[in-house]
Amino acid sequence: MGRTSDAGEKILTAARSLIELRGYSALGVAEICKAAGVPKGSFYYFYESKEALALAVIDEQWAGQRRTWTRILGADAEPLERLRLLFEETEAAQRAGQHDCGTVAGCLFGNLTLEMSNQTEAVRARLQEIFEAQVEMVGAVLDEAAEREEIAAADTRAAARAVVAQLEGRVMFAKLYNDTQWLGPLWANCLALLGANAAQQAAAGA
Amino acid sequence: MGRTSDAGEKILTAARSLIELRGYSALGVAEICKAAGVPKGSFYYFYESKEALALAVIDEQWAGQRRTWTRILGADAEPLERLRLLFEETEAAQRAGQHDCGTVAGCLFGNLTLEMSNQTEAVRARLQEIFEAQVEMVGAVLDEAAEREEIAAADTRAAARAVVAQLEGRVMFAKLYNDTQWLGPLWANCLALLGANAAQQAAAGA
Repeated sequence: MGRTSDAGEKILTAARSLIELRGYSALGVAEICKAAGVPKGSFYYFYESKEALALAVIDEQWAGQRRTWTRILGADAEPLERLRLLFEETEAAQRAGQHDCGTVAGCLFGNLTLEMSNQTEAVRARLQEIFEAQVEMVGAVLDEAAEREEIAAADTRAAARAVVAQLEGRVMFAKLYNDTQWLGPLWANCLALLGANAAQQAAAGA
Repeated sequence: MGRTSDAGEKILTAARSLIELRGYSALGVAEICKAAGVPKGSFYYFYESKEALALAVIDEQWAGQRRTWTRILGADAEPLERLRLLFEETEAAQRAGQHDCGTVAGCLFGNLTLEMSNQTEAVRARLQEIFEAQVEMVGAVLDEAAEREEIAAADTRAAARAVVAQLEGRVMFAKLYNDTQWLGPLWANCLALLGANAAQQAAAGA
């Protein structure tokens, strides 16, 4: 075991991998500490509970993903092109995960929504905040596209929710079939949901 | 405890409720038998394993849901109207579940896809069969709509997959927010995904 300050990080890293592979409920504190290579007794020095650790895993994952989303959606390209790049990045990330773990792990937030949201209100609230932030980020890009009359959607936040729902639904199927090709039609689906104009749809082969 | 033949049914019913509320991994055989009111020793008389019980729960749920889908999608109404009624029924079922359990439980198949598909190949295969059957049922209705030139979608099976993905994504959000209103825009989203003609979209207020 390294310095005390490392042990908390090791627990977090081990928990993230284990939760991604097997979900939250099936895990025990002893197993997480064993995977982290830290004595079981040290767990509660860093985390008040298994739930507190789950929240830390969620926060760390979102901090990384939000950086990626901000970089792509805040870039210089045209608004719909930025959205297309976001989906491309999502597919690449799932493919990389599949390469590393042998299986498409899906979206950590979607996985935990279906597994945990009915069981712990703290996790439910945190996941709601994350999906609201995603809808807001996508919605802001749609505002730009609507201003350029590239999409017909009048309520851009409602349209963003439909887009994020399609993303989560398709990630679910990519996990079920262990095949990231399920994410391929996402861009065409997105343009259809947005009522994108003919030029945009033709460019996407939609 | 009733007759032996009842005990297997009681285990199945208890397992279905518990899996719906808390997922599969968190459950133990002892807890299921306690909820069913049967001696723990009798479990393995009926089910070879907890996984075998999960498969029985999935099969029973799909048998009921398939009957509902067949009734609605095979009815006499116009094709897109049947699809609209299917979404209406889905929302009503989630609302009834929320009324009974205090919380939107979501789709059992979606829940188990994200929780279990990477952990047991038997469950993954069964869930794939169910979603393929759903896509086939929706796709057959879309064939009729395409023949009537009510939708633009050329590949009706691809369109059906997009529709089922939107359904699963929105059910996920209904569960996250414990609010079935998330299912309200499903019909308008579906028409957009299908490239439904203007008359159909106007009728839906889409």
